[in-house]
Amino acid sequence: MASAEHSPLTRKLSAFVALSEVELAVLERLHQRRRSFVAGRDMVHQGQSAQAAYILSSGWVCSYKLQADGTRQIVDFQVPGDFLGLRSVLLRTSDHSFEPIVDIEAAEVLASDLLGTFARTPRLATAILWAASRDEAMVVEHLVGIGRRDADARMAHFLLELKSRLALVGIGSKEGFDCPLTQYHLADTLGLSAVHVNRVLRQLRESGLVTFRDGRVTFHDYGGLVELAEFDPAYLDQTAGPLLK
Amino acid sequence: MASAEHSPLTRKLSAFVALSEVELAVLERLHQRRRSFVAGRDMVHQGQSAQAAYILSSGWVCSYKLQADGTRQIVDFQVPGDFLGLRSVLLRTSDHSFEPIVDIEAAEVLASDLLGTFARTPRLATAILWAASRDEAMVVEHLVGIGRRDADARMAHFLLELKSRLALVGIGSKEGFDCPLTQYHLADTLGLSAVHVNRVLRQLRESGLVTFRDGRVTFHDYGGLVELAEFDPAYLDQTAGPLLK
Repeated sequence: MASAEHSPLTRKLSAFVALSEVELAVLERLHQRRRSFVAGRDMVHQGQSAQAAYILSSGWVCSYKLQADGTRQIVDFQVPGDFLGLRSVLLRTSDHSFEPIVDIEAAEVLASDLLGTFARTPRLATAILWAASRDEAMVVEHLVGIGRRDADARMAHFLLELKSRLALVGIGSKEGFDCPLTQYHLADTLGLSAVHVNRVLRQLRESGLVTFRDGRVTFHDYGGLVELAEFDPAYLDQTAGPLLK
Repeated sequence: MASAEHSPLTRKLSAFVALSEVELAVLERLHQRRRSFVAGRDMVHQGQSAQAAYILSSGWVCSYKLQADGTRQIVDFQVPGDFLGLRSVLLRTSDHSFEPIVDIEAAEVLASDLLGTFARTPRLATAILWAASRDEAMVVEHLVGIGRRDADARMAHFLLELKSRLALVGIGSKEGFDCPLTQYHLADTLGLSAVHVNRVLRQLRESGLVTFRDGRVTFHDYGGLVELAEFDPAYLDQTAGPLLK
């Protein structure tokens, strides 16, 4: 079992695969090439051919697509323990851009190292396939949110998902979590205007459910928020214990 | 290299991994448990715990989520060579339902067989991770489509994506393809009403770009459609040749 001294990625994958000492060591070795990136400057551009992925150790990143008319759709956020650009390495081109929201620390993983690791430690390949499946399940939830949920439920669902993701890597508590996202990030994620985002957050606060202010999300009525969002965390698969023993 | 006598899944994965004779044999053995399902009856229900995935051999399937208010968001369609419920097996619960659109043939793959295959043939695990990444890239495109593209471009992008996916498994031609989807499928996929879908299809036809009628999509001006949709097939990664030699 991974302990707090391990990287966030190791903690996350350990939720799915009971990693051996050898596998733990291989995973930690993938973190050797440490890099720092400053907030607000793209790490990877849409359309760039991808030679490397990154494992996020600290900080938050957003991945987004720009349309030709200049509008931006944020596809997802990455928090510690998440891969950036794993899909881009496998598909050999980045279908989106990555921008650090705060200064971040990440490990660079070359495509060849990644493919070599998969070949030598197949249980790690399976664990990373699990993580990719979980990421896909989140994008599906965002798709359903934009397609079919009203603005309040969409926001509530998004905040609950973030809480669960952070909890898996030991960040935040059941009271809330620190969150560097602005109203513009929320707007471009949820398909709302910034003004609408503010209105929704005010409603959620005045209903006594949740407050998002000064970089902090605070839950007042977790159960009520879950009900509003129809939030079922099964797609995040983080309570059942390892599938691969 | 996989030939036409191989399954559609083998043809698809061969676009990414140059599979050995042993790997080809293992992949074909995953197809042993053949099953038939009739159109219109759910194969897997949202929330069902998932013991098996399916590999689609022939026919079309849609995967969707129902909201509590009864509205349906179609997340994706599966065509021959696609996995159904791979994510559900890994996440141990199905986050959506699967419904065959026509009568279909599929191979049932038990979770244990799948995990065993990954452990013994890691290059197949990598190839399936590639396929999962490609599926995720498609969901991202749908998210961007619903969030940011206008209805004409959304429809055009969707039809072009389907054409590319089918071409990879040897179905259809550059003139067009057979397509069993109804206006209701299109509406629930693209976040439009059925009336709006009809209007969009009429506009595309009258602009001389594409016709979708009587179960057949026919391209009249492929280049014009690509331009309207801003369609860049890079995210489907099917022209560069195998990454894993």
